[in-house]
Amino acid sequence: MVFSSSLLENAVNEFAKLPGIGRKTALRLVLHLIQQDTKAVEHFSETIHTMRKEIKFCKQCNNISDKEVCNICSNPLRKKELICVVETIRDVIAIESTQQFNGTYHVLGGIISPLDGIGPEQLNIEGLIKRVTDEKTREIIFALNPTIQGDTTVYYIGRKLKDLPVTITTIARGIAFGGELEYADEMTLAKSISNRIPIEHYISTIG
Amino acid sequence: MVFSSSLLENAVNEFAKLPGIGRKTALRLVLHLIQQDTKAVEHFSETIHTMRKEIKFCKQCNNISDKEVCNICSNPLRKKELICVVETIRDVIAIESTQQFNGTYHVLGGIISPLDGIGPEQLNIEGLIKRVTDEKTREIIFALNPTIQGDTTVYYIGRKLKDLPVTITTIARGIAFGGELEYADEMTLAKSISNRIPIEHYISTIG
Repeated sequence: MVFSSSLLENAVNEFAKLPGIGRKTALRLVLHLIQQDTKAVEHFSETIHTMRKEIKFCKQCNNISDKEVCNICSNPLRKKELICVVETIRDVIAIESTQQFNGTYHVLGGIISPLDGIGPEQLNIEGLIKRVTDEKTREIIFALNPTIQGDTTVYYIGRKLKDLPVTITTIARGIAFGGELEYADEMTLAKSISNRIPIEHYISTIG
Repeated sequence: MVFSSSLLENAVNEFAKLPGIGRKTALRLVLHLIQQDTKAVEHFSETIHTMRKEIKFCKQCNNISDKEVCNICSNPLRKKELICVVETIRDVIAIESTQQFNGTYHVLGGIISPLDGIGPEQLNIEGLIKRVTDEKTREIIFALNPTIQGDTTVYYIGRKLKDLPVTITTIARGIAFGGELEYADEMTLAKSISNRIPIEHYISTIG
């Protein structure tokens, strides 16, 4: 692609760095922005910049947050004794969108995946164990993608927690094996939380 | 979609305003940016902002430019007596990428399309006629999409120019009828420029 303007070329190059955006799509986005008001584009770029500069990770649950402690952890109406363990921030957004869960979350930041070089020590597992020990956690719900890596992670953390006085459950297998949690419809996801099953039963179905 | 952070929500809303970007894609892009260096995201937003603030339209050909007159119009090696008439800036980029054309361009900013309420007066046609009259233009090549609207535009401008001492051609119909110029492969596009045909012949094939 040959550009007669370096301003245009630089902007296309920046957009093309984003995942899933090729150079033709990047050009379409940039030409769209050129047609917009200067103020609107200024607002766009400032919003992105401010977001990156000020965004924090909640020191309790590792979720994305505007403050030190996220809106969910600091909400007195949410049940602190109920922790839903998820892989990523997207899963928090997906479960929150069902409006069926009133506990708190714990974002692992990934799942155990030896092939990708991700071991337990790279995940936020110690933080979870500390929370369970320090706070009066009654129940932990695992809401991980139902894949082999997800099952391995449930099994690993389940063993770490087995001597603590906490009930461990997983969301029901309403989601097809190998599926992606974030793309499930809200009804299936909501049901999989209300029909959660004890971990002993879940592990017995893995083997 | 429910967000626990308004910074995140605002950024997703901004990306979701772009054409072809839904909320799930917008979220994916924003989460990607969160994982990037603050400096890299600052560079991204500054590049977009600078581009919108400083971009100009060439006062000769209406192409996107960093200066008053674009790189192509101000290049002494380009043939000023040869003007290629295109619909949009994307078409300039597509033809430049073939590296087969050494004349200048004239961007109409659209084509005559009564159904969309676009008449000749909304296009940059007067500017073209002025250029042909003032400069020593020898040939005009129409490189418009080969659709009914494109043909109408060729016909309209062709009649306006018929008393001026200029040869009028159109790019060869190497591109399928109803196709989009910007998605053609470079070889087809390059050939369609080298095999251009006189407008009298072209008009006789329309009817």
